[in-house]
This record gives sequence, C-alpha cells and structure tokens, in this order.
Amino acid sequence: MTTIETSRSQYAQIAGLVRRRIADGTYPAGAALPSEDRLADELGVSRPTVNKALVILRNTGEIKVRRGAGTVVRSLPTIFRDAKKRYAARNQGTGAGEVEVSRHALKSSTTYREIGQATPPPAVAEILGLAEGELTLLRSRILYADGEPIQIADSYIPWRVAEGIADLFKENAGRGGSYGRLADAGHPVTRFAEDVTVRMPTDDEQRTLELEPTQPVFEICHVAYSHDHPIEVCMHVMTGHLWKLHYEWDDPTHEQDA
Amino acid sequence: MTTIETSRSQYAQIAGLVRRRIADGTYPAGAALPSEDRLADELGVSRPTVNKALVILRNTGEIKVRRGAGTVVRSLPTIFRDAKKRYAARNQGTGAGEVEVSRHALKSSTTYREIGQATPPPAVAEILGLAEGELTLLRSRILYADGEPIQIADSYIPWRVAEGIADLFKENAGRGGSYGRLADAGHPVTRFAEDVTVRMPTDDEQRTLELEPTQPVFEICHVAYSHDHPIEVCMHVMTGHLWKLHYEWDDPTHEQDA
Repeated sequence: MTTIETSRSQYAQIAGLVRRRIADGTYPAGAALPSEDRLADELGVSRPTVNKALVILRNTGEIKVRRGAGTVVRSLPTIFRDAKKRYAARNQGTGAGEVEVSRHALKSSTTYREIGQATPPPAVAEILGLAEGELTLLRSRILYADGEPIQIADSYIPWRVAEGIADLFKENAGRGGSYGRLADAGHPVTRFAEDVTVRMPTDDEQRTLELEPTQPVFEICHVAYSHDHPIEVCMHVMTGHLWKLHYEWDDPTHEQDA
Repeated sequence: MTTIETSRSQYAQIAGLVRRRIADGTYPAGAALPSEDRLADELGVSRPTVNKALVILRNTGEIKVRRGAGTVVRSLPTIFRDAKKRYAARNQGTGAGEVEVSRHALKSSTTYREIGQATPPPAVAEILGLAEGELTLLRSRILYADGEPIQIADSYIPWRVAEGIADLFKENAGRGGSYGRLADAGHPVTRFAEDVTVRMPTDDEQRTLELEPTQPVFEICHVAYSHDHPIEVCMHVMTGHLWKLHYEWDDPTHEQDA
C-alpha cells in the first residue's frame, strides 16, 4: 500500500514515487515502465494523473519514450566531455567522439548523414573568413552511445583546403581523423576554441536526438586553428541532459599578483 | 492590414509577426508590448490566441514579464563569457563578474545574499576534500546587468583557510577580489577547471533570475586550485538564453602528429 500525502499535487507525488522506484532499482535502468493503466490501477489514481507525472520525468530525461519499446528508464550515465583530452586523443589514433563514450564503457557508433560539398551557414562562413559564395566540405554525422543518439556534429572545412585531400571524403578519414589528414597536408591544428550556448531543439533535432520539445540542447561551435587561421568549424548539437562539459586551464597571470 | 497565412497555426503566426516587429524596431528593446487586448483587437484574433503566441516568445526569452512593467522586449545582448580572460582580469583589479558586463557597456551591480559560515553541498565538500562536518565560508551573490538578474554565484572556501582572512568577510574583498586575498595569504590560484551542465531552474532560481519554468539555466561548477589543491568552488547558475560561454586552448600535442 502506497501512502500519498495530500499536501502536494497528486501528479507531483506520483512523479516522486516513480523517481524513488528508479533509484531503488524497482524499475532498473533501460527497463520498460509498467503501462499507464497498470500504474493508475496500482496507485488508485486516474490515468491522466499518471500521464502528467510521467511527463515531468520525460522532461528531465529520467525516462524516455522509445519507438517500439514504450516508456523506458534512462540508461545512459552523464557523459563527461573533457575538451582538451578529447582532441588530444587523435594523436593516439582515437576519434574525439569516441573518447567520452569509451570512458564510460558504452558502445559507440556513428552514422554519416552527408559528406560532400555544401554552402555553410552564414555564421560558419564568417568564422572561416570565406569569400561570398565560397563553399565547404561538410561532414555531417550523428554519434550514438549504446544505440541512443547523443550528438549531431556538422564539420565544415573550406573547399579549397579539403578538395585535394581524398581521405576527408571517406567516413573513416584514417589515423587521427580529419585533423590528422589536415596536418599531413600542411595544416597542423594548433589551437581550439569553443563557444557554448543552450537552446531548445528544432523539430528535426527532436526527432534525430529523440528529445521532447521541452528538453534543451547544448550547441558547441568548435573552431580549430592552423597557423593562427581557422581551418575547421564543427557545430555540435548535444542532448543537454546527458552531458557534462569540462574545461580546465592554467592561469599564468597569478605571478603578477601583488 | 496584416495578412495571416492559414497554413500555420494562428498563434505561431502571431508569434512570428511580433518577432518581426521586434526585429524591425516597431517594438524596440526594453519597451513594453501593447496589451494582449490591444493586440487581439488589432490582429482580429482572440485574446487567448495572443496569449499563446506571447508564451512562445517568453519561453525563448525574446520578451519577458517584469513586475510593474508588463511584458517588455528583451533588452540585454548575448553576454560573452571568456573564461580565461574573466579570471585573469583580477590582476588588473577587475572582478570576474564585471568583465563581461562592461565588455557590453552594461551597468553591472551585485547583491550579496550571504557572507558567512555554511555547510557546503555534498558535491562541493567532495571537490574541496573536506572532512566530515567541515565547514566553509560561503559568499553568495546575485549579479545584475542593467538591473536584470543574470547570475547567481555561490563561492565556497574551506573555513580553516578563510577564517583568518578578514577581507573575505567583506562584500568588497579588495583589489583582485577573493583570489587576491587568497594569494596574499599564501594560496595563489594557479589553475582553474569548470564543469558546465544545463538543467531547468528551481522555483527559487525562477524567482531570483526572473525566468519562466521552461527556460533552462547553465550551471557552472568552477574550481580554483592553489598548489594543485582545490581552494575554492564557485557554483554559478546562469540564465541560459543570455550567455555564450567561451573557452580556448592551445593544443601542444599536435607536434606528435605523424
């Protein structure tokens, strides 16, 4: 018998109850929840009340509706993205996107949506310093962890730089990825910058990343510099509730302290 | 006379119309919108339809309900936060929080909520490596730009470090702020790390930061290191739609590329 306090709204109480059952393992990670009807029966409340409770947990990402699987408990951990380490890893032949996923012992996979010539978004063209109408090579991909989409990454390299580098047109660009091939071609990447913003997902992003309209995404505009010129811009759109972004830096100015 | 297409939902069209009027200056930044009744009259739609349209724009932060002022057009620009620069600025005697605000020629102000002994949240105690029950000095403040709240910052310093440093108990800790005083006391800050996550605001944060429940916040867990030990943790909660976080770093490993 479940005791429901009367001081809080009923659906908020039921959300709390489901949350406790997830925490104590009654509903394990990845498992399907009982149907709304069964929950309503068990708890002696109406089905719309159960539905309202589950909406709260869907908005926070604690549960998720998966096509064909019903409503399942979140199974992915918070994915720790160490910006410095993920790009340094290319020297060991590891792709940046795989660094976090393997850190958490998740199975990583990537789907390429497009590799080819493309007009970049105006913001990207501006960062790359492109002339009016100048084109880019676009490598557009979706990263999955244990089969769940966690990130869209659209990488833009000026066409005049990319066109002579055949490996950039393959899904697997070889050891060290795109940056490895850029280095081979005389464009070693020596500096990175990232701008992080948060916003609501577009309709397309909701579908691609399996998000509710109420779940925010991180947008990271990642810029790679070679010889002090921007050589690549990669726009990342990431499921906000799944990621923790990590940055660290030495502070050389402290010696000037009085 | 305003032509309304029939292919999109009416309230989405009205949201688009108001957005265009904001862009073209019909409704200037900071100005109050006409009342819902007046808009409904002018556009020949019902007041609930206008209300639904304005909810869309409130969720994105394009407009905002301010107590006593009605519904006003967003007046703050996107605030650019360069992590490295903001902390380096203390050597010029500038507080970190004021760096961004003055970059954009906004008027900065700070309200202190608390300066005193406090039990830190468990996550903060763990980062600081505190013993069971060990206390901290908490400096809790709200940062405003042109009178609008943009950030809550709760800074925790181990009590055993802080108790002997009188200036840390003042709102104005002096030249270079808290880090300046820590350096004076033999704890120069030499490294920083930040973990960035996104989540929905708590009820208290909604009130403090004047946010809708649907507007996400950035949470930055900022850690300052002295002699390789964490000496301060500052938890920032920031209005997500107002900020762009910037990080950049050199990539010293590129020389190992084949």
